[in-house]
Amino acid sequence: MITLAVDAMGGDAGLAVTIPGALLFLRQQADVRLLIVGDEVQVRQALEAANAPMDRIQIVHAAQVVEMDEQPQSALKNKKDSSMRIAVNQVKEGLAQAAVSAGNTGALMATARFVLKTIQGIERPAIAKFIPSQNGHMTLVLDLGANVDCTPEQLVQFAVIGSELVHALYPNAGAPRVGLLNVGTEDIKGTDTVKQVFKLLSGSKLNFVGNVEGGSIFSGDVDVVVADGFVGNIVLKTIEGAVRFMGSAIKQEFQTNLLTKLGALAAMPALKGFKNKLDPRKFNGAIFLGLRGVVIKSHGGTDAVGFSYALEEAFHEAKADSLTRIQQGVADQLAHLADKKLEVEQAAINID
Amino acid sequence: MITLAVDAMGGDAGLAVTIPGALLFLRQQADVRLLIVGDEVQVRQALEAANAPMDRIQIVHAAQVVEMDEQPQSALKNKKDSSMRIAVNQVKEGLAQAAVSAGNTGALMATARFVLKTIQGIERPAIAKFIPSQNGHMTLVLDLGANVDCTPEQLVQFAVIGSELVHALYPNAGAPRVGLLNVGTEDIKGTDTVKQVFKLLSGSKLNFVGNVEGGSIFSGDVDVVVADGFVGNIVLKTIEGAVRFMGSAIKQEFQTNLLTKLGALAAMPALKGFKNKLDPRKFNGAIFLGLRGVVIKSHGGTDAVGFSYALEEAFHEAKADSLTRIQQGVADQLAHLADKKLEVEQAAINID
Repeated sequence: MITLAVDAMGGDAGLAVTIPGALLFLRQQADVRLLIVGDEVQVRQALEAANAPMDRIQIVHAAQVVEMDEQPQSALKNKKDSSMRIAVNQVKEGLAQAAVSAGNTGALMATARFVLKTIQGIERPAIAKFIPSQNGHMTLVLDLGANVDCTPEQLVQFAVIGSELVHALYPNAGAPRVGLLNVGTEDIKGTDTVKQVFKLLSGSKLNFVGNVEGGSIFSGDVDVVVADGFVGNIVLKTIEGAVRFMGSAIKQEFQTNLLTKLGALAAMPALKGFKNKLDPRKFNGAIFLGLRGVVIKSHGGTDAVGFSYALEEAFHEAKADSLTRIQQGVADQLAHLADKKLEVEQAAINID
Repeated sequence: MITLAVDAMGGDAGLAVTIPGALLFLRQQADVRLLIVGDEVQVRQALEAANAPMDRIQIVHAAQVVEMDEQPQSALKNKKDSSMRIAVNQVKEGLAQAAVSAGNTGALMATARFVLKTIQGIERPAIAKFIPSQNGHMTLVLDLGANVDCTPEQLVQFAVIGSELVHALYPNAGAPRVGLLNVGTEDIKGTDTVKQVFKLLSGSKLNFVGNVEGGSIFSGDVDVVVADGFVGNIVLKTIEGAVRFMGSAIKQEFQTNLLTKLGALAAMPALKGFKNKLDPRKFNGAIFLGLRGVVIKSHGGTDAVGFSYALEEAFHEAKADSLTRIQQGVADQLAHLADKKLEVEQAAINID
């Protein structure tokens, strides 16, 4: 039985989305119970009104709420009784295997990092997300904005935690193929930082396929795409914008005249299938990776369906025991990289 | 009458694409003549076979060809008689108002920069492209890969040349709205470099709207989006990948079963309209900006239609006398920025 902690007060709409989302999820997954964290009276009211299955739900009271525009440091200092903080605390204390929040991203990251700490050997957590690509393949892209400036070592750490997560979730798919996001595939391409990352990854135990361009996110040729949080965030927002733009461009074409409007009716099954397949709510869960606990960030403006998918993501990671696997994998990979470094230094000394 | 120089030997297919592309373009534009640069015998043969309108065509012989994978430095040093080099020379010598090549990007950039030099006050040329956005609006994005590392001053220069180009092409649309590509709209966001650019642009005479996220490329809210060549290239390739992916996802949906296949038939007019509107060949011309001459880079793998659009782009810029306007605009904007800087330094001295 998996237990997830839910920040019920987070997100633009709070309980109005999180409670129906949580119940939707509970109906789909039998093997799970939820700790619903928030104002006890309001949460109980919302659950009763929705006729919730209380045998799989426990309410955990939280007296405070982190505001959507609150500064991370303020949330950390002044909101120790917030639903966000207490949800993350449940993971820290081993009462839940993952926490999900639709609250303020910066505050959630600061809270998760402060409460859970990073995995041994990982300096900074990253934000990762699965992006749909060709033929139903999913590409994990990270970092999506937690760290605008990264050292080569930190980027290597992102590659390791990304690879280990994918491996934990898909243990039978072979070693995840890791690509480094760059402006070309040749190894001489890119900034000095990226060139150094290329060298480090080439000497790693990862299944490093080399530099990849932006298009590889969608090609299905790689499983993990690594970038710093500046590039990653811009890429993510660009993708979201491109998808919105193309969706509205199609819509417009079908509204051109009577003929195209009739065409839209006939095309409805395919168009619905298309919309359904790329429904952003299905890809809602952003993963805070590199922490000693599973934390999933739902989009603040999503609806109940979207929120239920964030819970799904948390559930899968918890069920796969991804954290244990990531911790072992990281220790293994980083030990290998340290050995390599020692070898290189030793060689340098011998040359001297 | 506008004269364009065409590198007839460049691109993956060379003459097989450039000649039909050039003739397609000539049929659409009356007010233009072409200098077709390449092997005289081969060019003449291709033109004769296609029954070309020789009254608007002049063949300029070039004994060499720059290979598609040739190193820029090698092309610069060893290919002084190449069709690429001679096409650019035509611009330098005032015999053409713009040059178009589908050849090796790095070699073309190195050649253009060496032959034409940059505009006074612009340290490095950038690669810019118009990206289609909401409601037929076009967003100029630069740099798309000429400079992976940029100083804040260089990014400001990109903003200036981008803004001046849009202003030259659309003189009646008001001052172009310039956005700085970043991970959020607040002015505290981003890397140190980007923060500095934000400050510089805020003090400029440009219509600077502030930081924008990736989605703004498609929103129609800005006319120019500025990034360094590392981010810009990754963004461009990501967009291309997303468009391909979505296109194939739609196609797949329509092939699901008989019902959807029939739907596709009925939806054909709208789907064709959609495909046509976002046809990448229409957005084929990449602009080498910041040089003392107009140089347009066509995609190396495009077909005749795509190549004709690259010629179109060159034609519009030449016709708008964009270069003169950009040079004047740059001088004006940079003088203002220098004044500002002097003011700031003066203020600092007064405080001391």
